Amino acid sequence: MIKVAVLGARGRMGTQVCDAVTAASDMELVAQLDQGDLVNELSADNVDVAVDFTIPAHTENNVHALIDAGIHAVVGTTGWTDASLVRVEQRLETVGNRTGVLIAPNFGLSAVLAMSFARQAARFFESVEVIEYHHPDKVDAPSGTARHTAAQIAAARRDAGLAPSPDATTDGFEARGADVDGVRVHAVRLRGLVAHEEILLGNPGEQLTIRQDSFDRSSFMPGVLLAVRAVQERPGLTVGLEHIMNLGDIS
Amino acid sequence: MIKVAVLGARGRMGTQVCDAVTAASDMELVAQLDQGDLVNELSADNVDVAVDFTIPAHTENNVHALIDAGIHAVVGTTGWTDASLVRVEQRLETVGNRTGVLIAPNFGLSAVLAMSFARQAARFFESVEVIEYHHPDKVDAPSGTARHTAAQIAAARRDAGLAPSPDATTDGFEARGADVDGVRVHAVRLRGLVAHEEILLGNPGEQLTIRQDSFDRSSFMPGVLLAVRAVQERPGLTVGLEHIMNLGDIS
Amino acid sequence: MIKVAVLGARGRMGTQVCDAVTAASDMELVAQLDQGDLVNELSADNVDVAVDFTIPAHTENNVHALIDAGIHAVVGTTGWTDASLVRVEQRLETVGNRTGVLIAPNFGLSAVLAMSFARQAARFFESVEVIEYHHPDKVDAPSGTARHTAAQIAAARRDAGLAPSPDATTDGFEARGADVDGVRVHAVRLRGLVAHEEILLGNPGEQLTIRQDSFDRSSFMPGVLLAVRAVQERPGLTVGLEHIMNLGDIS
Amino acid sequence: MIKVAVLGARGRMGTQVCDAVTAASDMELVAQLDQGDLVNELSADNVDVAVDFTIPAHTENNVHALIDAGIHAVVGTTGWTDASLVRVEQRLETVGNRTGVLIAPNFGLSAVLAMSFARQAARFFESVEVIEYHHPDKVDAPSGTARHTAAQIAAARRDAGLAPSPDATTDGFEARGADVDGVRVHAVRLRGLVAHEEILLGNPGEQLTIRQDSFDRSSFMPGVLLAVRAVQERPGLTVGLEHIMNLGDIS
Repeated sequence: MIKVAVLGARGRMGTQVCDAVTAASDMELVAQLDQGDLVNELSADNVDVAVDFTIPAHTENNVHALIDAGIHAVVGTTGWTDASLVRVEQRLETVGNRTGVLIAPNFGLSAVLAMSFARQAARFFESVEVIEYHHPDKVDAPSGTARHTAAQIAAARRDAGLAPSPDATTDGFEARGADVDGVRVHAVRLRGLVAHEEILLGNPGEQLTIRQDSFDRSSFMPGVLLAVRAVQERPGLTVGLEHIMNLGDIS
Repeated sequence: MIKVAVLGARGRMGTQVCDAVTAASDMELVAQLDQGDLVNELSADNVDVAVDFTIPAHTENNVHALIDAGIHAVVGTTGWTDASLVRVEQRLETVGNRTGVLIAPNFGLSAVLAMSFARQAARFFESVEVIEYHHPDKVDAPSGTARHTAAQIAAARRDAGLAPSPDATTDGFEARGADVDGVRVHAVRLRGLVAHEEILLGNPGEQLTIRQDSFDRSSFMPGVLLAVRAVQERPGLTVGLEHIMNLGDIS
Repeated sequence: MIKVAVLGARGRMGTQVCDAVTAASDMELVAQLDQGDLVNELSADNVDVAVDFTIPAHTENNVHALIDAGIHAVVGTTGWTDASLVRVEQRLETVGNRTGVLIAPNFGLSAVLAMSFARQAARFFESVEVIEYHHPDKVDAPSGTARHTAAQIAAARRDAGLAPSPDATTDGFEARGADVDGVRVHAVRLRGLVAHEEILLGNPGEQLTIRQDSFDRSSFMPGVLLAVRAVQERPGLTVGLEHIMNLGDIS
Repeated sequence: MIKVAVLGARGRMGTQVCDAVTAASDMELVAQLDQGDLVNELSADNVDVAVDFTIPAHTENNVHALIDAGIHAVVGTTGWTDASLVRVEQRLETVGNRTGVLIAPNFGLSAVLAMSFARQAARFFESVEVIEYHHPDKVDAPSGTARHTAAQIAAARRDAGLAPSPDATTDGFEARGADVDGVRVHAVRLRGLVAHEEILLGNPGEQLTIRQDSFDRSSFMPGVLLAVRAVQERPGLTVGLEHIMNLGDIS
């Protein structure tokens, strides 16, 4: 049994993580911390892995405390910068890199897989475009995930020496979406939707479509549990769930 | 047996019409005219319906000649203006409106149906957007069909007193497509595709999607045959295939 | 303001109806009844329309009481038989058919529209198949909705004199789905899904796809509100939401 | 410039290969052989790679002759058995494995990628099903590709210790598709379609869809050209295009 502590246990994500850990047959929920609780009271004697879904202002301190205590950390809190990641790596070195820290911007397995497949497929197709679909209360377009996907597709095409996707448009560019590193990204806003992404790849006579649908927050739990299981075997800092999924396009 | 003449019989569409008429068990291909042939040599004695897929410069004269000869006309040639349509109506009146003339910008049944369904559904949904997908050699965006679909959706929503589709976007409008009468239209260009249109309608907790795919020119033949069969029973001028399809949203 | 009473107000659907009525700017929630409350204490003096989401054992009595009181009724409870519908029609006659009763098996607008569009499109395509997608806890396959859709498609094709969809399969019929009146219906079961239906129609070179997604129960509320607004203007018995949607394929 | 010979040059596939090689800027079409031409007249002095799209009765002999001549071979002809593959390996050994032979049952990049992605994703989802869509003249169901995809998904799930996809169906199994190693496979037949495959994977709250469309035979050419470029650097026997695509799930 993996003994799991949850930080931010009363938050929207934390609550779900507590439920998911409780339901997992190979895990035991041993501690639920939230505002006012002290992370440094946790000990490696009774906690194997801590899951942090707190807030940007606290997550870095939490991770440093967990490293010092020798507790593996799985972190879903956002707000990490290159500088804060470097500080985590340095702290890990001071304890001989025996502890694992996995920080992931996205625990949705389908989203992580879609991005990996887009990266793998990118160099084989003449044309590629991305469409993201979200609820109409979203203020930014295109979504960060779609932007990130397009940037990675663009990099893979550049590495393979591909020309830009062909486009004879001379009239009506405003219908052709945003240009992210040369890849067109379209944002649809529709009541009833949550978060969805579609990558369309085309060659003469064939099309490949990779689509990912997130219907609700529960979709992140399989990824969190996967991370809890993997982080113990992966000392040092890991950023991104794809690195523990053996997808093969990741070294 | 319906006796059918084809004008523009050696053109890309005309060739296919000849094949389709020949293959239809209730039709007989009695004449194939092309450049140099005289339309006014056709006679109602041996031709029931003429199908015109010629060129904009000739189609109006052809139709007038057919009206004079008492031959029903199905016309797929583009380039008709309000003025030229009025002239056809006037000519039809001079012969007592006994002849039928059906002019259609699109003989694709799936395209005509998609547009009708979009019109019928429009007033029941909070959100609606249109995506069109075409080969990358297309120069204009969005497509005329998508633009027309969006305009009809917009009109149906206006008639029903609906507010615009909700959209909280404050950042990244260039990813949100073209604005056609308040309806967002996205244009995807992908090698391997031909002509496709998708209408997405959303309410809290539900989505309706109407999608239409045209893979090649053969897709227009069922619509042409439908028109040939219907035009004899429909004296006067009819513009648009939807009027002979009993779709119910059309008076 | 339309004064609305909700019967079965504490049930899963009833609760949502109460919220939806409260949120609607043209309605007022004037009564919430549940087990133990007496329907015949409602009066047309202060209730315009009653919405019944109770149980099959009670709904017919409720409707008779509402008819007697002169209160229009919108009914989502299942379990109605031909005999019970006839009894409602007879009761309506005794009060001079001044009251409106609308009974609908499905208040999902996208589901009702998908079925109507399938019916309208059916006669124009050589091939048609239906795929329904549901969560894996569903015990019956195919779904009642898909079965009903296929039956109506089959009837429309029969009326138009169409041959069965072509199918050269000689080996592997078990992959070809259930046969509902000659229309193939496939049932997919997938964790994460709720209730979805897709109607695929094909001709040479073209395809038309009508897809309907129900993500949660909230999707029924726009249909319930539409019924509340329409039932007052529609005296007598109406079965099926499509009759108040002016879809044109419905007389 | 890669000097390419085409065997079966007048066949349906061979004709397209000739055109594709001619159009490729890094290749030169140096020989077109068909019935009556002798493969053993080809020499490594003026041919680098030979592409064989002949018939099952000839392809093995052709490959042996190419190995003897030191010409790399790309083979799309079907009909290879385990025994004939072993004989090719033995022949390659006799020449010191300096020549490359790549035999692929499918040169469609999107089809090969879809299968690889299905294999990679399989172990991360509770539910998985496969739908294949083909023209209605196909006699077998489900397609060999879909059957193969399902078998590989099943193997990946078994390796990961996953339980079967959940399915509460007690009534209507005939709608639930064919059972291929425990994975449900549905076959749709629709006029207008060519060859399409969709893999649906589901977890609580999320779905991943991988879809592959083959619209016509031209779709195989990018895969053939990729193989021609890669086979020179890959001595010995390779079966399957995926091995030269660096997909990472392939050793």
